[in-house]
Amino acid sequence: MIVELISVGTEILLGNIVNTNAAYLSEKCAVLGLSQFHQSAVGDNPKRLEDAIILALSRADILILSGGLGPTKDDLTKETAAKVMNKNLVQDIHTKERIQEYLQKVIPNHMVTENNWKQAMVPEGAIIIDNLNGTAPGIIMEDNGKRIILLPGPPNELIPMFQEDIVPYLNKLQPELIYSKMVKICGLGESYVETQIMDLIEEQTNPTVAPYAKTGEVHLRITAKARNEEDAMKLVAPVVTELKKRFQDAVFTTEERVTLEEAVVELLKERELTVTTVESCTGGLLAGKIINVAGVSDCYKEGYITYSNEAKKRLVNVSESTLAVAGAVSEECAKEMAIGGAQSANADVCIAITGIAGPDGGTQEKPVGLVYEACYYKGNVEVNKFLFKGNRDKIREQAVVKALTLLRKNIIENK
Amino acid sequence: MIVELISVGTEILLGNIVNTNAAYLSEKCAVLGLSQFHQSAVGDNPKRLEDAIILALSRADILILSGGLGPTKDDLTKETAAKVMNKNLVQDIHTKERIQEYLQKVIPNHMVTENNWKQAMVPEGAIIIDNLNGTAPGIIMEDNGKRIILLPGPPNELIPMFQEDIVPYLNKLQPELIYSKMVKICGLGESYVETQIMDLIEEQTNPTVAPYAKTGEVHLRITAKARNEEDAMKLVAPVVTELKKRFQDAVFTTEERVTLEEAVVELLKERELTVTTVESCTGGLLAGKIINVAGVSDCYKEGYITYSNEAKKRLVNVSESTLAVAGAVSEECAKEMAIGGAQSANADVCIAITGIAGPDGGTQEKPVGLVYEACYYKGNVEVNKFLFKGNRDKIREQAVVKALTLLRKNIIENK
Repeated sequence: MIVELISVGTEILLGNIVNTNAAYLSEKCAVLGLSQFHQSAVGDNPKRLEDAIILALSRADILILSGGLGPTKDDLTKETAAKVMNKNLVQDIHTKERIQEYLQKVIPNHMVTENNWKQAMVPEGAIIIDNLNGTAPGIIMEDNGKRIILLPGPPNELIPMFQEDIVPYLNKLQPELIYSKMVKICGLGESYVETQIMDLIEEQTNPTVAPYAKTGEVHLRITAKARNEEDAMKLVAPVVTELKKRFQDAVFTTEERVTLEEAVVELLKERELTVTTVESCTGGLLAGKIINVAGVSDCYKEGYITYSNEAKKRLVNVSESTLAVAGAVSEECAKEMAIGGAQSANADVCIAITGIAGPDGGTQEKPVGLVYEACYYKGNVEVNKFLFKGNRDKIREQAVVKALTLLRKNIIENK
Repeated sequence: MIVELISVGTEILLGNIVNTNAAYLSEKCAVLGLSQFHQSAVGDNPKRLEDAIILALSRADILILSGGLGPTKDDLTKETAAKVMNKNLVQDIHTKERIQEYLQKVIPNHMVTENNWKQAMVPEGAIIIDNLNGTAPGIIMEDNGKRIILLPGPPNELIPMFQEDIVPYLNKLQPELIYSKMVKICGLGESYVETQIMDLIEEQTNPTVAPYAKTGEVHLRITAKARNEEDAMKLVAPVVTELKKRFQDAVFTTEERVTLEEAVVELLKERELTVTTVESCTGGLLAGKIINVAGVSDCYKEGYITYSNEAKKRLVNVSESTLAVAGAVSEECAKEMAIGGAQSANADVCIAITGIAGPDGGTQEKPVGLVYEACYYKGNVEVNKFLFKGNRDKIREQAVVKALTLLRKNIIENK
């Protein structure tokens, strides 16, 4: 089946927002086995929106529209889609009550205004999806084998609604169910990973294997089609096993929602280890990433940002001579930062980062992008040297991912 | 004039990447006074791409295509656009030399392969734009009052090319030049700012004033049309003055490219002040933001991540009794963190953050989202209490922006 997306909102055409919904919905639809050949964005203009819907319906079986379901007069997605489908709008009592409840919960003394009830009007015969995070309900209209799905624009409303209600709906439409697993890899380059699984990518049709590159990570999605979930899982399982065999410890999770920092914190918790960070060029971003993980307080207690030489000496005991001879961006300095950090924080593990993020400060010998990362654990220190490309932000972002990878590797290898 | 965007690439339809180019180009086109009514994305498929180009050309004067200019067989944007415009492809010697030079610079011992020369083929009569950050040149085709602009997909190639070459080109097409300034505001809510300038938004047609909301900031874009830059600047200047008068110190810059952290660091440098940070729930994100600013080493030397009570005591001298009586998330604790941080780092200013980022750890009295921020400067401490909404990430992101705002306010007020 063919799906097409239309994002509705003048704010998209003015560039006020980045359309992350389109990327989210595209990935999810691809996973569901739906083909997508076009996507578009139009403003809050009824005539142009109507034309866009008619054109899209001529090419696709399923049309997903996001945005334009708000309470104001500008919001016309529902009205326009209903018109194209020849449906009248009628008041939905259940939705009216739900909106009232929702508003009372979120804004206790809020007077529900007349225009809120616009959101309780729904196309006759439509399937209504409760919105647990806002007032606009999701709506599914079916007619003559064509389907239009209307979703609220805010991602915190759209994503849970799509995941909870639209995915099962779309899955039911298809003769076969789609099931997928994600194998996430760190510490290996995208092209290396791809060459290692070329046979799987090229030979397999069910399940399929598709690589997705993120900064410093490679995600492999294994997708199977089958009559039921049990059969689909049986198809996917041996491929996951094979990928784990090929990439061994570089696989940090097979769970879609688990991030690298979550996998690392999980590992720290399992081993009952505490970790600290000593950061120069990344200036707190690594610690910030680790503390992204809820419930990290058992393993992360404190960390140091040592941007000056003085701070490197005083806080984590880097020696004057190392700074004078090898310099602050050196293997020796990274090593002393890691050892000193573990001591100062009385932590089991310490990860230290020092480098030149640019745009200034680079030399022939020590160019912008040069970063040393050290990991102290059980009396050993491993130092990695990197030469990252890109601007200041990009260099620091890569340094953080590589640091998490180095930390993870040291914990796994030195049981 | 009407512009339309087409993003080319199957990776967009599969959701592998978020289409940030579309948001960037949309904002820039809006600033240039171009109207945009549709934008779309298509995969690397010549027939569908051709149809999309023909449809877009029927509605728009200027068509901007991004992506699909690479050296592989899949990349067909140039070939397809040239076909629609009835242009032959011919080899461009200048581009061939530039590609050779570029590749030799980036990959010294790289053998230039035959498919690289595909990128030196250009439509006859087209305007060629050198790509300083990659091999694919930008291309402008003109025919019968319609224009097609082809840009490389990678943002680090597209953005500088658009800014340096396409903006002047588009500006010349119009009878009037477009000029805009950005007034960036922190510490005031979006709806408050909007009500304060309702008269300017509603009454003015040249220049116009348009608000853009970012997390914790409001950006006001003032855009004028005039025959030349001097006249346009004369139209914009009094509105900028008026906005500065209305919002006073809340205006942190009138430069489009300056971020809040850059404005704060600039202020620290001007006053020759050093700053440190003591972070609990934000765990290094504030420091990371400050150290985003290149050349910050004069004013930021070191910082502390004090996630545990023990760290709050040992590193920045929070008292046992404060932690026992008021707790780690309290006005008192934030205050002591700020005072102690300034002492430990021997810094002029210290900003401290302690709060509950969730999802767990909230109570009736101290709910998730409760954050205290304190700023120490010249013997005074100002503490702000916030109750942020959203998930863990969102709470921490808001806390960082508010901390920069508090820091800035204290420096400005306590001269």
